[in-house]
Amino acid sequence: MPDVLGKNFVAGQRTGSGEPTLKSIDASTGDALPYSFYQATAAEVDQAARAAEAAYPEFRQLSPAKRAEFLDAVADELDALGDDFVAIVCRETALPAARIQGERGRTSGQMRLFAKVLRRGDYLGARIDLALPERKPLPRVDLRQYRIGVGPVGVFGASNFPLAFSTAGGDTASAFAAGCPVVVKAHSGHMATADLVGGAIERAAAKTGMPKGVFNMIFGNGVGQDLVKHPAIKAIGFTGSLGGGTALCKLAAERPEPIPVFAEMSSINPVILLPQALKARGETVAKELAGSVCMGAGQFCTNPGMVIGVRSPELTAFVEQLGAAIAAQGPQTMLNAGGLRSYGKGVHHLHDHPGITHLAGNAQEGNQAQAQLFKADVSVLLEGDPLLQEEVFGPTTVLIEVEDDAQLKQALQALRGQLTATLIGEPGDLEAYRWLVPVLEDKVGRILVNGYPTGVEVCEAMVHGGPFPATSDARGTSVGTLAIDRYLRPVCYQNYPDALLPEALQNANPLGLRRLVNGEWSHDAVK
Amino acid sequence: MPDVLGKNFVAGQRTGSGEPTLKSIDASTGDALPYSFYQATAAEVDQAARAAEAAYPEFRQLSPAKRAEFLDAVADELDALGDDFVAIVCRETALPAARIQGERGRTSGQMRLFAKVLRRGDYLGARIDLALPERKPLPRVDLRQYRIGVGPVGVFGASNFPLAFSTAGGDTASAFAAGCPVVVKAHSGHMATADLVGGAIERAAAKTGMPKGVFNMIFGNGVGQDLVKHPAIKAIGFTGSLGGGTALCKLAAERPEPIPVFAEMSSINPVILLPQALKARGETVAKELAGSVCMGAGQFCTNPGMVIGVRSPELTAFVEQLGAAIAAQGPQTMLNAGGLRSYGKGVHHLHDHPGITHLAGNAQEGNQAQAQLFKADVSVLLEGDPLLQEEVFGPTTVLIEVEDDAQLKQALQALRGQLTATLIGEPGDLEAYRWLVPVLEDKVGRILVNGYPTGVEVCEAMVHGGPFPATSDARGTSVGTLAIDRYLRPVCYQNYPDALLPEALQNANPLGLRRLVNGEWSHDAVK
Repeated sequence: MPDVLGKNFVAGQRTGSGEPTLKSIDASTGDALPYSFYQATAAEVDQAARAAEAAYPEFRQLSPAKRAEFLDAVADELDALGDDFVAIVCRETALPAARIQGERGRTSGQMRLFAKVLRRGDYLGARIDLALPERKPLPRVDLRQYRIGVGPVGVFGASNFPLAFSTAGGDTASAFAAGCPVVVKAHSGHMATADLVGGAIERAAAKTGMPKGVFNMIFGNGVGQDLVKHPAIKAIGFTGSLGGGTALCKLAAERPEPIPVFAEMSSINPVILLPQALKARGETVAKELAGSVCMGAGQFCTNPGMVIGVRSPELTAFVEQLGAAIAAQGPQTMLNAGGLRSYGKGVHHLHDHPGITHLAGNAQEGNQAQAQLFKADVSVLLEGDPLLQEEVFGPTTVLIEVEDDAQLKQALQALRGQLTATLIGEPGDLEAYRWLVPVLEDKVGRILVNGYPTGVEVCEAMVHGGPFPATSDARGTSVGTLAIDRYLRPVCYQNYPDALLPEALQNANPLGLRRLVNGEWSHDAVK
Repeated sequence: MPDVLGKNFVAGQRTGSGEPTLKSIDASTGDALPYSFYQATAAEVDQAARAAEAAYPEFRQLSPAKRAEFLDAVADELDALGDDFVAIVCRETALPAARIQGERGRTSGQMRLFAKVLRRGDYLGARIDLALPERKPLPRVDLRQYRIGVGPVGVFGASNFPLAFSTAGGDTASAFAAGCPVVVKAHSGHMATADLVGGAIERAAAKTGMPKGVFNMIFGNGVGQDLVKHPAIKAIGFTGSLGGGTALCKLAAERPEPIPVFAEMSSINPVILLPQALKARGETVAKELAGSVCMGAGQFCTNPGMVIGVRSPELTAFVEQLGAAIAAQGPQTMLNAGGLRSYGKGVHHLHDHPGITHLAGNAQEGNQAQAQLFKADVSVLLEGDPLLQEEVFGPTTVLIEVEDDAQLKQALQALRGQLTATLIGEPGDLEAYRWLVPVLEDKVGRILVNGYPTGVEVCEAMVHGGPFPATSDARGTSVGTLAIDRYLRPVCYQNYPDALLPEALQNANPLGLRRLVNGEWSHDAVK
């Protein structure tokens, strides 16, 4: 078995000055696993944040190529975490081994993708306005701009992606790429996983000569608040519930020095069924959609929690088919007991609402999640009922039948911000419903055509973000390479001697960047 | 005389359903000017925000070239505001005509620069990841990303730049460029100026066929709060005091849907005198620095409010010379009576502090500002005394003498975030004090060598921003073309039919953009 120490990660050391009172739980049985974790003390939280602060000046000034080596080394260490590791992740999360193996590849691939971004160098945003000494009425001085990391980043891992959105996940990868050391608050749902991944990062940091304190991680209850309030922390990455994210945003805004928070929170990800598609392939869509709703026990931020269609015989038939497909799903074990309780509560609230009807699904009881299909009267949405605006995290979706296109538009405009919206349509549908595109653009971070939102590709063009409450800041994404922008800020150098400038801005262009020089893009040296 | 109507600007109309009780004041005499302004009612604030919301879908979907025409037309209208207009601005602000003529050119030039950004198109951030149907284990779908405006922006004009940071200033220009309609809260210090500039924008909007409501402006006390709280407003641009900016940030964070605020607030802009420069040209620097401290009665966000040097006979001589130059300055009329009161209070607090000594300057009394030089014991800075951390808005600077380089570093690290820091040094100084650069990078948005921070070039590479409290978000700038980034958010399109995609992302690349295609930059069409 791999060695799970259970101690906090501080400046390249493992510390446990508190008590090893935290236990990780087997998600399937509810039994404690044979590992104990040390609740971080207030002093350890402080030490972790200070270690990140101390590492920051050196880390952010490393060449992009050097930081890329570090990210590649992390990727290699992640890939080297073997079957024993996968077995532990499975026990902590009840996720199947194939999923964890895939997620491991996604997580190491994400690190390597950010290494490529570093080597490409455009994230630096290099801009040069050369001096114009003869300009009238006033000369222009030489001005150059590039972007540096904002400082140490606090990262809160997600329950549902123990690898890709956690210790070495997208927030950590993008912060490292930006030159920001991190302090991770390990998720209580997979602490052994976090411990082993933390060890992988530490090995990579040591191999590539990173400063101590580039990576730190703390275990425990309540330590996240101390982390957000710590003056050394300059930004926060979070994936989790609307309540949790909102609380962190509030803490961050109330600091003597407020800091930005990127919280990815609540999204119901509407799927809009267009009429010709319903006619042409309603039954197939019903099966596929049921699969997307139930995939991974519905525990995805992009789970389709709402299905909208215009009233028609085909929609009625579709709903029958969707209901049958949902009812046929077997029960699934959720990530943890807390998640199951929340899901049960959410299903209960839907059952209890007078404007909502239960259409399909076995009774939600016992220790597993049962898939459910509900139907809500469109008035519940139009009146802004909060029950339809917040995700029920699990394998449940709510059908909304609208009378006509005008009501479809109203219904979509009544939605709050979302990570995704999906159009299921034939070519003729998409042409006829062209007007939907700008309506959806205002509401979501990603619009899909004829797909299901539960797959989130890690690439240059992905946006895993969107207007509040999908995230706390629609200008960010937590998946894809644009995620690095969240942790960068511009700095300008005026009339600077060439030798003192950062390499990105030196005349000779030693990094070979494409730079905006006097308003024109150029790969050339200047002067 | 130009026609000052004094009514609010709502959806292309002038409205005054409240009372015309607001008067603009002659800044030199304190007398009321012959114009009355209508306090916007709550209904008018709502109408203005709703007008911007209604204009947003059309405005943001205009081609970049079409929005560029609008910006160019605004620039032309601003340039056409003649001597009568300049005379009114001078009366409202006590700023000299030459300064206002220059600022008019800067403001129209700023509009034209953003028009160039629109035509260049890189602000769109177009990224394309083509489908990889054969990829194993899973195919990749086609994913494309670009950036759209966040929605209507509320703009708060600044007292000290009645043109360049106000009605048609950088916040408005960058919001328009991003595709965001604006609602301006007119600054009470120059309402007639605002009225005439608003008219220029309206003429340009009409000439270029912009949607009604692309520009709106409200007059009055307390209407800014209603504006920030209005659900249709999606971001705020503000230039002003730390107290004012902090209050708006708090309001914005407490909304049911929190929104980003870019507040440019308080900066003392340290100037660091290096030893060889003091030896070589201390006397010249003293004169130049006094000029920068006193320029425009010290009413610049980048006014050098702190001067730091290592103890030496040359520093002692420099301080004498700086004191003489400061004492020789004549009194200056400030922008308004409130500003003069604040300045008097700030000077009074410096006089009263036991760790601070008054070195030069005539007694601060009467109705004009007197330039002042103080010296603070370094301990006042190191202990974090707030008096040294907040700007005294006016022609005053505080000298800090440090014992040695180690204390210089401590002193700089004790500073809070700043818009600028300036190094005055000979080539040998800059080499020897190379270690200062990363220390300053962590604190400021712009580092200058052998210049004075009071000039802020409007260009691609400028950063007029910096860590808190210089601004509320170090990742933004309110001057220069990067300012557009504050008002853009990414949207992703998955598996979209080419004809439905925004032009920026269509295969044929009709806008001729340089796009990130499969991780490589390319001007080409795809497929």
